Amino acid sequence: MRGVVLHAPGDIRVEDRPDPTIEAPTDAVIRLAATCVCGSDLWPYRGIEDVNGPAPMGHEYVGVVEEVGSDVRKVKPGQFVVGSFFASDNTCEICRAGYQSRCVHAELVGALGTQAQYARIPLADGTLVATPDLPADDLVPSLLAASDVLGTGWFAAVAADVRPGTTVAVVGDGAVGLLGVLAAQQLGAERIIAMSRHEPRQQLAREFGATDIVTERGDEGVAKIKDLTNGLGAHSVIEAVGTQESMMQAIRATRPGGHVGYVGVSHDVSLPGDELFFSGVHLHGGPAPVRRFLPELIDLICTRQIDPGKVFDLTLPLEQAAEGYRAMDERRAIKTLLRP
Amino acid sequence: MRGVVLHAPGDIRVEDRPDPTIEAPTDAVIRLAATCVCGSDLWPYRGIEDVNGPAPMGHEYVGVVEEVGSDVRKVKPGQFVVGSFFASDNTCEICRAGYQSRCVHAELVGALGTQAQYARIPLADGTLVATPDLPADDLVPSLLAASDVLGTGWFAAVAADVRPGTTVAVVGDGAVGLLGVLAAQQLGAERIIAMSRHEPRQQLAREFGATDIVTERGDEGVAKIKDLTNGLGAHSVIEAVGTQESMMQAIRATRPGGHVGYVGVSHDVSLPGDELFFSGVHLHGGPAPVRRFLPELIDLICTRQIDPGKVFDLTLPLEQAAEGYRAMDERRAIKTLLRP
Repeated sequence: MRGVVLHAPGDIRVEDRPDPTIEAPTDAVIRLAATCVCGSDLWPYRGIEDVNGPAPMGHEYVGVVEEVGSDVRKVKPGQFVVGSFFASDNTCEICRAGYQSRCVHAELVGALGTQAQYARIPLADGTLVATPDLPADDLVPSLLAASDVLGTGWFAAVAADVRPGTTVAVVGDGAVGLLGVLAAQQLGAERIIAMSRHEPRQQLAREFGATDIVTERGDEGVAKIKDLTNGLGAHSVIEAVGTQESMMQAIRATRPGGHVGYVGVSHDVSLPGDELFFSGVHLHGGPAPVRRFLPELIDLICTRQIDPGKVFDLTLPLEQAAEGYRAMDERRAIKTLLRP
Repeated sequence: MRGVVLHAPGDIRVEDRPDPTIEAPTDAVIRLAATCVCGSDLWPYRGIEDVNGPAPMGHEYVGVVEEVGSDVRKVKPGQFVVGSFFASDNTCEICRAGYQSRCVHAELVGALGTQAQYARIPLADGTLVATPDLPADDLVPSLLAASDVLGTGWFAAVAADVRPGTTVAVVGDGAVGLLGVLAAQQLGAERIIAMSRHEPRQQLAREFGATDIVTERGDEGVAKIKDLTNGLGAHSVIEAVGTQESMMQAIRATRPGGHVGYVGVSHDVSLPGDELFFSGVHLHGGPAPVRRFLPELIDLICTRQIDPGKVFDLTLPLEQAAEGYRAMDERRAIKTLLRP
């Protein structure tokens, strides 16, 4: 099969890779209907994360089940399924508490490389959620978004305790931040402040429910959020970047007793204990347990109540993955969908 | 009046200080029935926090109202009252959300020095809670505990999301940690693991409801907590120290999706973003909004359902405050009560 491999920073190639097969009786093999490039794929692409030899890329996926192992009971060949970047058994104590990304048997799907024609998915019964029917083709991008960026933005909003009537600020205007806006809107936020200085992203934020746009960053951005909230700060802040600046911006923009939901993968972040202590905020986040939300998200998508697939503003054949990475790296595209 | 003043690290004196008076129409002046030395008073006493000239000490207090300002409506002379270390209006949006320690009009009572015969309490109507009647003398230590250490331990347990049936670990065996054990027991925890290597404190922890004692610290302590929890970590961890070691011990002893409630005042703490991110824990804490809990705590004490006053294992006349500090500094006493 064909699949995307990162050889060195900036060096993305589409190559022949071995066809995946059932290795454990709990595996499934799926044929990808669509896959995509994640903001987190840009860290190694930019050389900020180490690249140790050729690495198959991709951890977002939707597709049709081709084959299942002998212990797989719930998932059947021919079903259209959505999964997330952590395979999980969905039965252990941690999964049952809603933290499937930290399942005691969790496996990172990223290592398997879903930017490809086929993928092996471990713990298929726990990991994969089937759509009610084969979805219409125009729903595929939204279902693919549920696999990571929507599920992650949704978790961020839940982690930030977004509730009806609250004011929410969103730090980060990538796909996750934008879908954090959508999640906040669905969860009933009254006011949603998107922090963005890019016009097309501001536009999409508004479509997803943002009521205000703040273009300032850092301390100026924080001052603007305070201005908009009687000097108190937002009830809930979604952090979707992962840098020191964005984390401090999120913490400082939150009122005492408010909540920060952070999902940007941390890079060189160090939180000062005294400032955090006196901020009085709640802090929760980490790798999103997307699996927790998949049934609800699939329902919202299949009943056309939400259209998160709008974050894909570039669609390319899998063979042109390198251009898909470049466009995101240069911020010409919010998110690239790849058709295998 | 007589009051405690810190002149330099280790140099505690009891001196004549000016009698407090009503300065603002929202003030009250109280005659102290009892006051005490806080673990946080030891930071400047030990020179770890700067001492800039003579500083009146103390922020814990119970006593009888002597006089009130012209705008005070709820609190009356002759009432026995309990307050906390932050004066708060208890009416602003932040107070109403339960974060009175971050009231938009908050004033730190610590600067006023309650280790004295009298104290001026700002924002009396919002800050002070009266007991139903004049309390029996043997209830005074418990009511004094409510003023800070019990309220702080209780907040830590609430911040750590302690619920019926859960497993709670407590890092820190000072008065706050021990009362965190009591709070966890009252909130219905099934298993309470106190981390302590001091026999008298272990004993008190057991009296307050601890079911297990772990004497190991740091990574060994974490390993022990994991051993006791199927390898997962505790649902809730109370952190009541405020050092790098204690914070990391608390975070690492918590299961993914679990909660850390931290109330030890942070000193030179820096939290690594990547470890925090992948831990998947909830983190909440800061200066406890003791006022939120006072009505409930006063009721539990006055109906003799809890006896948090047991943390006072040394009672001295105010004039012997210096010995009270020394005994706590040398860990000969858990907590010193001073009788003015």
